[in-house]
Amino acid sequence: MTQHTALENITVLDLTRVLAGPLCGAMLGDMGANVIKIEIPNHGDDSRNYDPHINGESLYYANLNRNKIGITLNLKSEKGKEIFKELVKKADVLIENYRPGVMERLGLGYDELNKINDRLIYASLTGFGSYGPLSDRPGYDIISQAMGGLMSITGQPGSPPTRAGNAMGDVLGGLNMTIGVLAALNARTITGKGQRVDISLVDCVVASLEQAIQRYFVSGKVPERRGNSYEAIAPYDSYMAKDGYLVIGCGNQRLFEVLCRDILRDPSLIADERFSTVPLRVKNNKIFKEIIEEWAKDYTVEEAVEIVLEAGIPAAPIYDIKDIVENEHIANVREMFIDVDHPVIGKVKLNGNPVKLMDMMPSIRKPSPTLGQHNRDVYIGKLGLSEEEYNSLLKDGII
Amino acid sequence: MTQHTALENITVLDLTRVLAGPLCGAMLGDMGANVIKIEIPNHGDDSRNYDPHINGESLYYANLNRNKIGITLNLKSEKGKEIFKELVKKADVLIENYRPGVMERLGLGYDELNKINDRLIYASLTGFGSYGPLSDRPGYDIISQAMGGLMSITGQPGSPPTRAGNAMGDVLGGLNMTIGVLAALNARTITGKGQRVDISLVDCVVASLEQAIQRYFVSGKVPERRGNSYEAIAPYDSYMAKDGYLVIGCGNQRLFEVLCRDILRDPSLIADERFSTVPLRVKNNKIFKEIIEEWAKDYTVEEAVEIVLEAGIPAAPIYDIKDIVENEHIANVREMFIDVDHPVIGKVKLNGNPVKLMDMMPSIRKPSPTLGQHNRDVYIGKLGLSEEEYNSLLKDGII
Repeated sequence: MTQHTALENITVLDLTRVLAGPLCGAMLGDMGANVIKIEIPNHGDDSRNYDPHINGESLYYANLNRNKIGITLNLKSEKGKEIFKELVKKADVLIENYRPGVMERLGLGYDELNKINDRLIYASLTGFGSYGPLSDRPGYDIISQAMGGLMSITGQPGSPPTRAGNAMGDVLGGLNMTIGVLAALNARTITGKGQRVDISLVDCVVASLEQAIQRYFVSGKVPERRGNSYEAIAPYDSYMAKDGYLVIGCGNQRLFEVLCRDILRDPSLIADERFSTVPLRVKNNKIFKEIIEEWAKDYTVEEAVEIVLEAGIPAAPIYDIKDIVENEHIANVREMFIDVDHPVIGKVKLNGNPVKLMDMMPSIRKPSPTLGQHNRDVYIGKLGLSEEEYNSLLKDGII
Repeated sequence: MTQHTALENITVLDLTRVLAGPLCGAMLGDMGANVIKIEIPNHGDDSRNYDPHINGESLYYANLNRNKIGITLNLKSEKGKEIFKELVKKADVLIENYRPGVMERLGLGYDELNKINDRLIYASLTGFGSYGPLSDRPGYDIISQAMGGLMSITGQPGSPPTRAGNAMGDVLGGLNMTIGVLAALNARTITGKGQRVDISLVDCVVASLEQAIQRYFVSGKVPERRGNSYEAIAPYDSYMAKDGYLVIGCGNQRLFEVLCRDILRDPSLIADERFSTVPLRVKNNKIFKEIIEEWAKDYTVEEAVEIVLEAGIPAAPIYDIKDIVENEHIANVREMFIDVDHPVIGKVKLNGNPVKLMDMMPSIRKPSPTLGQHNRDVYIGKLGLSEEEYNSLLKDGII
């Protein structure tokens, strides 16, 4: 064990708003980076207005901006630009999610900042990326789930295209942006230079579609919504038990045979010509589903899951948010909900970090900042401005 | 521009199978890491049997194992373990997704390997992580989507819990594993030591739920399936037009006002007490949806999207897989489908990488290996075995 954190040598300027970009900043902060969130004076990140709120502070914001210190800065003013450039000189990483061209029009695009700090990694995230014919289009999570193809394959058969119930496009965007920043940091150990990283939410959703893409190229058939079954494997679906649904996944022949023999108690199914290979089982998934549900109807979900797991076959109940929050393994041992003391909100539970670095566990060391909370620390403490200069920045609305 | 790749200094041993782990290896490989996939002799990764296939080779496998060289090795044999340890001495990263305890029982657990290479980063991915009361349970994507809470909030109102139509739990797992490996590489530049990284698919899904967690903690109300609408913002949903659905997202008050005035041509809606604040619009989303659909019914999706975008409001058609594959921006300019020449399959299109490192663009330099394709290169070329030794390994079924 050590007192180090994984990214303690990295300073990040975080200009991002709402979800995808802030998630990247929070991931880096959880792993120890020094993240400085820069917001518009008297306004701040749009998500400060998103529910849920306690004592006027948004928990949506609090979750995605923990482990950051917060300053305000008006990047449209000349003085603001000048100060920003001083911060860039001391930074390793800049993350931003303005529409393409905004930073350039401010005179703060990559080429400009590279001149003053060629070790800077400059990561942008937008709906469609910074280049390409659609790059000017505005993007939210729902836009990326729609145009990235995910909605077209999510949902019950015959139901309308369905959005994943969380902001999944944004989450994928934030994770891929984090990967880009960290890979560029490794590259910098080779070349000594930073570079641009360009993330598109739509790209991230498209990349997540895995085999649906190859399936289409091979068959020419457009993949459709197929409920909870999977085109690659079967049995692998949700099944109705006495009091709800469970899921079962048989990823290979051996597990299928165990299911037939030890659970369904009908070894003849193994040789049944409708089910003898994975592709046949995928094709006849509905018929086999009825066989499993005929068995499951006599058990509660809890009983059925236990019996199937006992045989060594992957199975699970379908948890709602209350279930996961109350689950000992998820909540306590894996620490996926972390108590944080926020100066305005009070005690709040934030999402834990799933990247368990075993010698340098990600942690929440700081609650999210109130708007401009660390102005004095940064402008006087780090940039060395005088009390007078600081007060004039405040008076002029630059910070 | 440079000839370097971002991870060219990194050697990865990839013991993973199926999707989540192999995705991590592919991400690292796309960015230039030297990835050696190690498979069981005469058997290989389970996903070699997953459809779609061409000429007997799986495209499922081909997509997730590009940019890797492939060797076979029987880790149960003493000779196999000995050879594996030689490979570990030359490696920076090991990724594996065996059930917890399997590597330890083989005598190849972290503690053992750390003794022979204390710079090794050892990343494990499992359904529930390597510690905690549920850690012994087997995990597939569907298990993590079920127990991680995602299915409970995905789907149309009144429909059963719904799986995201791709293997999203696995994708989140692979991305978080990649983040863990890259963060540990940075940490190694500080401490000189590697460490374990422990990823649980369920953790990754739980972390992706964003504000649903805080919403539950604040209200005590369990979030439910709500189709394509979002609890945080409205109007933000899918809407029926003349020939299908489009999505529209109004993330703030200004966009809402533009929608009422310039698109719906009814400024009285702005002051309407049912819609005057974001929480009221979320509450009365269905009523406002009817108003938008009354407008949209006279337009095709294409026309409606164009009109809404023209007003500066985020909107999109809902693309299916054919649409994204044929889209100029996504397919060609963003290079999200890459032609690769595979020795057995022939020409194949694989998913592009969404992490656009602008000076070191991820690329597909190598097709996936056939089983044991690079045995000779690695065992003779890199480990320096003699022709005789190599042949005896083959004869004894060790490789």
